[in-house]
Amino acid sequence: MLKPLHESLGIATVGVGGGVATTAAAGIELIRLGETGLDGLPLAETLGRDGLVPYAGLRFAGWDLDGADLASAARTHRVVPDERLERVAEALGATEPWPAVADAEYCRNVTGEHIQRENSRRAMVARVQSDLARFEAEMGAGRVVVINLASTERVPDMDAPALQSLAAFERGLDENDPAISPAMVYAYAAIERGFPYGNFTPNVAAEIPALIELAKERGVPTAGRDGKTGQTFLKTVLAPAFRARALRVEGWYSTNILGNRDGQALSDSGSLASKLGTKGDVLDDMLGYKVGDHIVQISYYPPRGDEKEAWDNIDVTGFLGQRMQVKVNFLCRDSILAAPLVIEIARCLDLARRRGEAGPIEALSTFFKAPMTAGGAPEHAFFTQQRTLMRWLMAENLDHVLSDEPAAPAKPDVVSAAPLAPVK
Amino acid sequence: MLKPLHESLGIATVGVGGGVATTAAAGIELIRLGETGLDGLPLAETLGRDGLVPYAGLRFAGWDLDGADLASAARTHRVVPDERLERVAEALGATEPWPAVADAEYCRNVTGEHIQRENSRRAMVARVQSDLARFEAEMGAGRVVVINLASTERVPDMDAPALQSLAAFERGLDENDPAISPAMVYAYAAIERGFPYGNFTPNVAAEIPALIELAKERGVPTAGRDGKTGQTFLKTVLAPAFRARALRVEGWYSTNILGNRDGQALSDSGSLASKLGTKGDVLDDMLGYKVGDHIVQISYYPPRGDEKEAWDNIDVTGFLGQRMQVKVNFLCRDSILAAPLVIEIARCLDLARRRGEAGPIEALSTFFKAPMTAGGAPEHAFFTQQRTLMRWLMAENLDHVLSDEPAAPAKPDVVSAAPLAPVK
Amino acid sequence: MLKPLHESLGIATVGVGGGVATTAAAGIELIRLGETGLDGLPLAETLGRDGLVPYAGLRFAGWDLDGADLASAARTHRVVPDERLERVAEALGATEPWPAVADAEYCRNVTGEHIQRENSRRAMVARVQSDLARFEAEMGAGRVVVINLASTERVPDMDAPALQSLAAFERGLDENDPAISPAMVYAYAAIERGFPYGNFTPNVAAEIPALIELAKERGVPTAGRDGKTGQTFLKTVLAPAFRARALRVEGWYSTNILGNRDGQALSDSGSLASKLGTKGDVLDDMLGYKVGDHIVQISYYPPRGDEKEAWDNIDVTGFLGQRMQVKVNFLCRDSILAAPLVIEIARCLDLARRRGEAGPIEALSTFFKAPMTAGGAPEHAFFTQQRTLMRWLMAENLDHVLSDEPAAPAKPDVVSAAPLAPVK
Amino acid sequence: MLKPLHESLGIATVGVGGGVATTAAAGIELIRLGETGLDGLPLAETLGRDGLVPYAGLRFAGWDLDGADLASAARTHRVVPDERLERVAEALGATEPWPAVADAEYCRNVTGEHIQRENSRRAMVARVQSDLARFEAEMGAGRVVVINLASTERVPDMDAPALQSLAAFERGLDENDPAISPAMVYAYAAIERGFPYGNFTPNVAAEIPALIELAKERGVPTAGRDGKTGQTFLKTVLAPAFRARALRVEGWYSTNILGNRDGQALSDSGSLASKLGTKGDVLDDMLGYKVGDHIVQISYYPPRGDEKEAWDNIDVTGFLGQRMQVKVNFLCRDSILAAPLVIEIARCLDLARRRGEAGPIEALSTFFKAPMTAGGAPEHAFFTQQRTLMRWLMAENLDHVLSDEPAAPAKPDVVSAAPLAPVK
Repeated sequence: MLKPLHESLGIATVGVGGGVATTAAAGIELIRLGETGLDGLPLAETLGRDGLVPYAGLRFAGWDLDGADLASAARTHRVVPDERLERVAEALGATEPWPAVADAEYCRNVTGEHIQRENSRRAMVARVQSDLARFEAEMGAGRVVVINLASTERVPDMDAPALQSLAAFERGLDENDPAISPAMVYAYAAIERGFPYGNFTPNVAAEIPALIELAKERGVPTAGRDGKTGQTFLKTVLAPAFRARALRVEGWYSTNILGNRDGQALSDSGSLASKLGTKGDVLDDMLGYKVGDHIVQISYYPPRGDEKEAWDNIDVTGFLGQRMQVKVNFLCRDSILAAPLVIEIARCLDLARRRGEAGPIEALSTFFKAPMTAGGAPEHAFFTQQRTLMRWLMAENLDHVLSDEPAAPAKPDVVSAAPLAPVK
Repeated sequence: MLKPLHESLGIATVGVGGGVATTAAAGIELIRLGETGLDGLPLAETLGRDGLVPYAGLRFAGWDLDGADLASAARTHRVVPDERLERVAEALGATEPWPAVADAEYCRNVTGEHIQRENSRRAMVARVQSDLARFEAEMGAGRVVVINLASTERVPDMDAPALQSLAAFERGLDENDPAISPAMVYAYAAIERGFPYGNFTPNVAAEIPALIELAKERGVPTAGRDGKTGQTFLKTVLAPAFRARALRVEGWYSTNILGNRDGQALSDSGSLASKLGTKGDVLDDMLGYKVGDHIVQISYYPPRGDEKEAWDNIDVTGFLGQRMQVKVNFLCRDSILAAPLVIEIARCLDLARRRGEAGPIEALSTFFKAPMTAGGAPEHAFFTQQRTLMRWLMAENLDHVLSDEPAAPAKPDVVSAAPLAPVK
Repeated sequence: MLKPLHESLGIATVGVGGGVATTAAAGIELIRLGETGLDGLPLAETLGRDGLVPYAGLRFAGWDLDGADLASAARTHRVVPDERLERVAEALGATEPWPAVADAEYCRNVTGEHIQRENSRRAMVARVQSDLARFEAEMGAGRVVVINLASTERVPDMDAPALQSLAAFERGLDENDPAISPAMVYAYAAIERGFPYGNFTPNVAAEIPALIELAKERGVPTAGRDGKTGQTFLKTVLAPAFRARALRVEGWYSTNILGNRDGQALSDSGSLASKLGTKGDVLDDMLGYKVGDHIVQISYYPPRGDEKEAWDNIDVTGFLGQRMQVKVNFLCRDSILAAPLVIEIARCLDLARRRGEAGPIEALSTFFKAPMTAGGAPEHAFFTQQRTLMRWLMAENLDHVLSDEPAAPAKPDVVSAAPLAPVK
Repeated sequence: MLKPLHESLGIATVGVGGGVATTAAAGIELIRLGETGLDGLPLAETLGRDGLVPYAGLRFAGWDLDGADLASAARTHRVVPDERLERVAEALGATEPWPAVADAEYCRNVTGEHIQRENSRRAMVARVQSDLARFEAEMGAGRVVVINLASTERVPDMDAPALQSLAAFERGLDENDPAISPAMVYAYAAIERGFPYGNFTPNVAAEIPALIELAKERGVPTAGRDGKTGQTFLKTVLAPAFRARALRVEGWYSTNILGNRDGQALSDSGSLASKLGTKGDVLDDMLGYKVGDHIVQISYYPPRGDEKEAWDNIDVTGFLGQRMQVKVNFLCRDSILAAPLVIEIARCLDLARRRGEAGPIEALSTFFKAPMTAGGAPEHAFFTQQRTLMRWLMAENLDHVLSDEPAAPAKPDVVSAAPLAPVK
């Protein structure tokens, strides 16, 4: 039985001062003012028939290594054009980040001073939970979800004993075990208190046995890992097409240049390894065979700022073994692609909670590079993922509305209401 | 009730000496010898579960403006590498084209001397039908399909009285009405005698009211129009992906350079208009709105020969109205992409006939730029088309096997049998 | 003997309200305020050693089909960012265009209401000359040059009697001969009164026998034709490199998409033919042989505005006849590339006049797609042109300073003086 | 006083079985047979006026880690098309490599069994010199040059005492000092006996103080380092063009994919560092300022074999600080570009020896990524290098023939003589 739809939802984000979160927050304010349309929001087409909280009801808060308010932070990222940002500067400026959980061992190249000074991981958890409790008190019970948008951490030691069971993990928290990463601290804190948890980063958190156990125990929906925005999005569109036409992929060379904080984090080899990990397996899974030469490169290239660029070269073999090449050059904007996905993930996690679903919500795989599953192999092919999402979304009215086609666009839910009270 | 599967099928092609037909014919011979794999054949994955005639059972014959045997013709196109061509030169050399139906008013830039000298369209029909009867006598009753692979004709006068009904059309044949194009002569001849008819060219034929009437009357399956090989294939893969992510397409600039006989035909403005016609509407249909600036250009560029190249630039708008660009550069091989589709279309038309289906087989829309339908709007989105094709193909064993996934690959049906006797 | 250097120079431009002229005018004002550097100004490196008028001494006026002042016009073109434009809006807003000479027969797609209503070409000449006299009175004698930046006209009838001699041309003016284009009216008016005349458009004017005769008679320097900004600039850089490495160019396919007023003018086939004419011969001249397949396409593509994009594909043959490809994708900004060249051409024409040079100044060929010469074949190779320009520029101090190297950068001449009085 | 021109010249290459040397050798044989033209040979245009040995007089021999004869080796590289290779297989097959000097410490990923088993570097030198003496005996005195085409070694310890003077180096040879790399062994052996030495690899050899001293003492011409074939060639063409137009380079991202033996060597990080070293400084030197973000990447990508591909993205700033991008995609063939340069370097080194020139021949800088100089800064700008080469080449007849233009093409020197006797 579906719980009733609220008119509002709080999104507590790890990295709320980053380019993605500030863009999402600014975008929601602009939608609220009726100053921007719904371009780029994938679920805008199903408005009114999907049971999701309206866009204008969303509200952002969260943690950041930098203490600047969201208006100041947004200005530094140069993603939202200045004149638009000024229209919502007051609303954004009223939100200040909570001190972040940090550990330089996990992410070397992005640091800050606005951090928790707690002595142990256990105390950090408590602090995060008190932040969440305060936010929930403002938004209303059951009206908060947590989304991780932090910089990429190095890959943790997946065999560390502390990660293998909930009991061991909780002991690790008490003993301040370094095997527990900041991402895990946040994930534990959220799930333990029943907040749905979405992971837009490559950081390993909800996937460890200890936290799978916890999510199951608490009946909390989760989703992740690593938002599928630019290059991997196109890869999961194109690879199934090559397969459908029996064009055999001999090699796929992918390179990325980007100059924002995400790129800076990835210029550390530990973080880069995490990122490449979630990009790597996608291709073989979709094609059904091992591609001999799949190379993925990411370079920190400051001249571009947030304007990420991907260049892919694909060598395929067709009839009679003849060779062909496809080259794709995507001049995209990292945060512009990511922010609306974050918004949709939050809305869907809220829906899942109201439906009483728990554990990894596989229907959200379309939003992730390395989709979490309840056990089976993940689906990577984009259009198969989209079908699954549409079926899941329409589950309540499935019998009479489902078709293969995306639903026709409906009127947007733009409400010119005054902005909600700021989060402190 | 499905008619029994034959081990062989004759494919009578208009333009049998062209790059596509000779590549298909050479490929089938190489498959028969076990000298090439099944790369590029989209339905190789469903082998043994689909009711289609095996690849090694196919045999090519047909008409051409040039009288050279298929081995000589194949050599001039330089599509199949020389050393491979020589392995099958004897088999190909045994097949000589039948004289073609030609009318310079319909296609200026590609001409030849190997043409029917009949005085009237009625006599041309008779000649084509006698060619088909001879071929069927060799292959066996119900074992021949017709595929049009001829050069692009100019757009006919769709309002000409002779095209509006079967009775008027037959009068037009008798009166040698110039409104009846060569493509229509072939289509009439085939359908009237019950041969399934597939149209891989942009030429208008089975779509005219007169021939729709005829196909219905005779219960003959048809398919068309204009094979979807390179640029449009990728366009129908990408556009639905942009829609799914709510990235609004502001402009799509597509240019092509190619240097083969097809390119030469298109350097005539009349023929070019036909081709652009089938390329043009695709985009708006898939996106659900009118793209302000959709430009398609095709240039005859001889240095490339059969190695066609497409360059697309796509301007999209995402969240907050921010602009991004995607550029796709496809270095493809025209005949290498087209030949296996021709093979699959022929096999599917044969299956449709054995199933007793008549009129446009919409399940084959994945193979065409401008899919024929029984009346409704055509589906252009590639993955939706693929699902439809898979469901249609698996109709006999649908209940237990259908899933969203393409079936797992099976063993190829390569038979190292001696080649069949040549067609004279 | 060189005439003394003035501190100021007036540039009377045909099309002063267009994207190029308004960008140049805004840029000069920003330089005057010290708010922008000298990026993009090719001769900034020779400052102080070249005898050219300082950038801060330039002032723009001219004719336009649209009567809007330069600030309003600049806003519509969206080339200069808004916040920068506002810093100089007052200075620009004080300049209003003079009514333009127009003839729809010569340029169909760009029209306006702010036109001379004179009855004859003779009267138009008089009107233009009175505009120039007024401007010269403000700037000082010998301190005005004329630059044509108008939209592309169709190719005139080069064999028309009126163009063949000065006497015939002057008769044609009296008889209002339609063979005399608007571009010729401006060129005649300028040269007849001794104003140096530069032609940044593909329009034929100073090249006709009548005006060559006039320039010689009056001792006036001229320069043209068609500014070499984006694609052709790179073509004249790359082609000599391929020649130096003996890489034989088999084909060169060039396509352009642009969405500004220039692009709109070119969507008329007559104007397009003019443009393609100046782009066409360049390649063969540089390579020393005829390139079999040199294709140039230009498409009006509004989504881009002033952000022109060029895509070139070059097929070359190297050692042992092996094929290679070079593809160049230039995402440029039309007016940003053109404006500084216009500024340099004006400064150089002024220098030429002070040196007493007359007729086509070949040393300026580096700035043009179809360089005018005094009779011989034009030089197209970019680095050869650059050497010639540097030698010409340094002629006064040649003996001791000339080397193969461009001179070392010197301090810019930015002067934070108040803007000059506006032009009315 | 110029020594007389011989009709023949022996080229002893380090790595004679590699793709570059076998392509060069096959090409010379095909030229001798009149079966190929002179495409790709940069100095073919100056034939007959330049004092260089004719192409048909060249003959290849040398050392390799693999003992296969040149015909067998050429077949494995798949650079020269099979049918052409068979025409010259007998001539190539008669040449077998001499055992190579090898040290796995210097090049990990390319190894072989056909190596010298000498116990010390001194003995290796003696062996190389006896190989050279045997070859010279066949070709004639003063008719042999040495060219290094070996795989990329790691960067040596440039501060090692053994490299600092000739005396120390010779002691190091006696003591088998590991600071002396294989490339240095070859260079010492050649120069010490008076053979001109060209270095087409990034390996450090003739640049060390010890060998500079030796070359001066023996009066031997040298040239190097690292052949300028694809990406760097275009970089040195484009960067000076950006400078000439005052387009400021903010970032230049260069990536390469290649699948041949050279690529394999570079997949070792030590070798890669050497290669990137010679690619790195070029840009800043040409532009006259430090480019903040110049990134060069090289990936071993086997699907391509010898068909190297480079993709460059260049961010430039123009007038008013506006940003533009240039992207260059070069689908080249590594050995096809390199082989003719090797041929020209050998011919020029022979000319330098006959002219009595010694030490680094700076006029050959156009052929190298990191040109050796007699002391000053190297010139990287391609067209400046070309002018220097043309002046040097025409030095004998300079007074009357020199112009800025490359000389007009003359008749090729193809001689259909029988091939010279093979080298054993």
